[in-house]
Amino acid sequence: MIPSFNFTRIPQIIFGAGKLHELYDFALKFGKNILIITGKKSLKESGKMDEITSNMNNKSVNSFHCSISGEPSPTLIDEVVNNYRNKNIDLVISIGGGSVTDAGKAVSAMLSKHDSIKNYLEGVGNKTHDGTKIPFIAVPTTSGTGSEATKNAVISEIGPNGFKKSLRHENFIPEVALIDPQLMISCPPSISAACGMDAFTQLIEAYVSTQGTPLTDALAMNGMKYISQNLLSACSSGGSSIEVRASIAYASLLSGITLANAGLGIIHGLASAIGGLFDIPHGVVCGTLLAEATKMNIKNLNEVGYGGKGGLRKYGDIGKLFFEGEGKNEVYHSRLIETLETWSKELKLERLGKYGITAEDVGSIIERTGLKNNPVNLNKSDIKEIVLNRL
Amino acid sequence: MIPSFNFTRIPQIIFGAGKLHELYDFALKFGKNILIITGKKSLKESGKMDEITSNMNNKSVNSFHCSISGEPSPTLIDEVVNNYRNKNIDLVISIGGGSVTDAGKAVSAMLSKHDSIKNYLEGVGNKTHDGTKIPFIAVPTTSGTGSEATKNAVISEIGPNGFKKSLRHENFIPEVALIDPQLMISCPPSISAACGMDAFTQLIEAYVSTQGTPLTDALAMNGMKYISQNLLSACSSGGSSIEVRASIAYASLLSGITLANAGLGIIHGLASAIGGLFDIPHGVVCGTLLAEATKMNIKNLNEVGYGGKGGLRKYGDIGKLFFEGEGKNEVYHSRLIETLETWSKELKLERLGKYGITAEDVGSIIERTGLKNNPVNLNKSDIKEIVLNRL
Repeated sequence: MIPSFNFTRIPQIIFGAGKLHELYDFALKFGKNILIITGKKSLKESGKMDEITSNMNNKSVNSFHCSISGEPSPTLIDEVVNNYRNKNIDLVISIGGGSVTDAGKAVSAMLSKHDSIKNYLEGVGNKTHDGTKIPFIAVPTTSGTGSEATKNAVISEIGPNGFKKSLRHENFIPEVALIDPQLMISCPPSISAACGMDAFTQLIEAYVSTQGTPLTDALAMNGMKYISQNLLSACSSGGSSIEVRASIAYASLLSGITLANAGLGIIHGLASAIGGLFDIPHGVVCGTLLAEATKMNIKNLNEVGYGGKGGLRKYGDIGKLFFEGEGKNEVYHSRLIETLETWSKELKLERLGKYGITAEDVGSIIERTGLKNNPVNLNKSDIKEIVLNRL
Repeated sequence: MIPSFNFTRIPQIIFGAGKLHELYDFALKFGKNILIITGKKSLKESGKMDEITSNMNNKSVNSFHCSISGEPSPTLIDEVVNNYRNKNIDLVISIGGGSVTDAGKAVSAMLSKHDSIKNYLEGVGNKTHDGTKIPFIAVPTTSGTGSEATKNAVISEIGPNGFKKSLRHENFIPEVALIDPQLMISCPPSISAACGMDAFTQLIEAYVSTQGTPLTDALAMNGMKYISQNLLSACSSGGSSIEVRASIAYASLLSGITLANAGLGIIHGLASAIGGLFDIPHGVVCGTLLAEATKMNIKNLNEVGYGGKGGLRKYGDIGKLFFEGEGKNEVYHSRLIETLETWSKELKLERLGKYGITAEDVGSIIERTGLKNNPVNLNKSDIKEIVLNRL
């Protein structure tokens, strides 16, 4: 049965090695005043930033460049917006990882407003954004968040009263997602691993989500097929292969499309809480929790019996990606958990303790954690167990 | 390997039984002056048109209603545009079959122009449309063309110098596709069959297309799964089942998304030529040619050997949908051709001769037929054979 569903627009997608060169003509369609947001280092070091600036100049574009570091905070977004509000910006382009993409998306949404982004963040402010924005092109340089295809920008304020919350509107889906796997070649193994595991987590959580539809299922399964065949390679000897990087970039794009339409589960519930309290990369939180959370979900789905059969079948579908031949659902489940545990080790995903999180913090983490669209209810002690096992 | 690809935006999708009632609030977001385009009969007879008008009036909308019949011609579009150009239309809504959707899309694109649509049709006029348009919501009442998700409107002028050509621009993708399977319940079996076979043809042609990508493949395969399980039922006892109608409506939507991004093959090449010369419903042409064209493509793919292996595997994937158990590719191919031949009979798809097409016309049909993105080259005698076998 096909349930009722809504499916958001997706950006126009330009995908392929070397496609960055199409950015310049494309950008011109939107106007001459272009704000480019990047990270602090990698584009500059690789010489790519010089190439981009010189190409923009050749097109007689009036481009502004702003570089940021770390995951974007309200203060950072407000500062950038204040600096460029009166420059008549026609187009915002982000070229960078998930944080840079989120920053670009947030800036493009806030340039028409005259107050702080904090007022519009879900669960933080009390204003609703009306969706007016400056057009936005996302050019990801890591494969992870899928933010190039989503309608939200994640903004963090880290500390005891910290948060990691979204600015969200249908209109915030980028006009264009330009995905050039060549830009991912220089991404180091540890970042490729954390980002890739974020994408995998998003695909799994969207696939088993209570809000999944045949359309999100088809896309998530397609993305997981490419992750299952390429992620280990992308983080080791295959890191210099365009084919391998393209596979992960494609899966990451699908993870964004599916999460925007099916939502996420307990891992992202925890990541939101942990990311507000501690300075820890989002991909590391997701990756390090994936095996434990999957184990806990499958255990609880087995306990609830009939009601959870959809979820059990779906975890079985995922397990099949790692299993040659035919087996029972339980076999696929074991194979999936084993694979995720092996991958956690092979990808050297750090434990939460590495970032200063201790058993004493678990209470305040749990308190802030929502289940989102998790396929089964988990109680506080279940959630606690997931975190404790990865301290 | 993931090839380079572009993927167009898709409309915001609102899908589900009873969702028509969401149209009214949604429409208001675009403004108060709304032009509704429908077919001549079915909405009026079912009382749905009265319901729609009264709901629009309740929202204090200034709505105009224009009904059309048959596949849209340049004269028809120009007439509608001339009548409404000065009404400050904020939104065009089409509620009807593929012809009505195409008419709505064309009108929304031409309201800002002051000359004939003929000037902008591919292969007919010599002007390029710049993409400016009035927002457009498509509400399909048949499941076939997938036009609610495509960037082109097909416009026909029938006769010895006739044509069936597209007005096309990325911007012409509807803002919203509202798909309510309840609206399809009253569609008679013969139309359900022709439309459903059009959708199936689009999915097959996009799947085996030389321009297919992993993304279009995943979507096409998902759509074909639902067609394979539901089309016969939708055209017989299952026609009153929302579940069955929803499955075909969903597959039809996917056929639009995939054809917009992977293109089509020989059957649509022939349908374009035949539809320009003769007054014959598009779905009938596609449906009646599907088995013969599939047989011819598979035969030629086998002859070319290695180069065509992708196509042979892909036809095998489709055949598997109709085959329980494991077999060789050749077995799946035979099963697919048998199924398509059986379906042609069970769905009572009329032969081309019924519409006055004779062996004498075949020459001028072939002359106007392009291969599009067919997975294998076919020579004129191959194409002739396809048509002659369905006269």
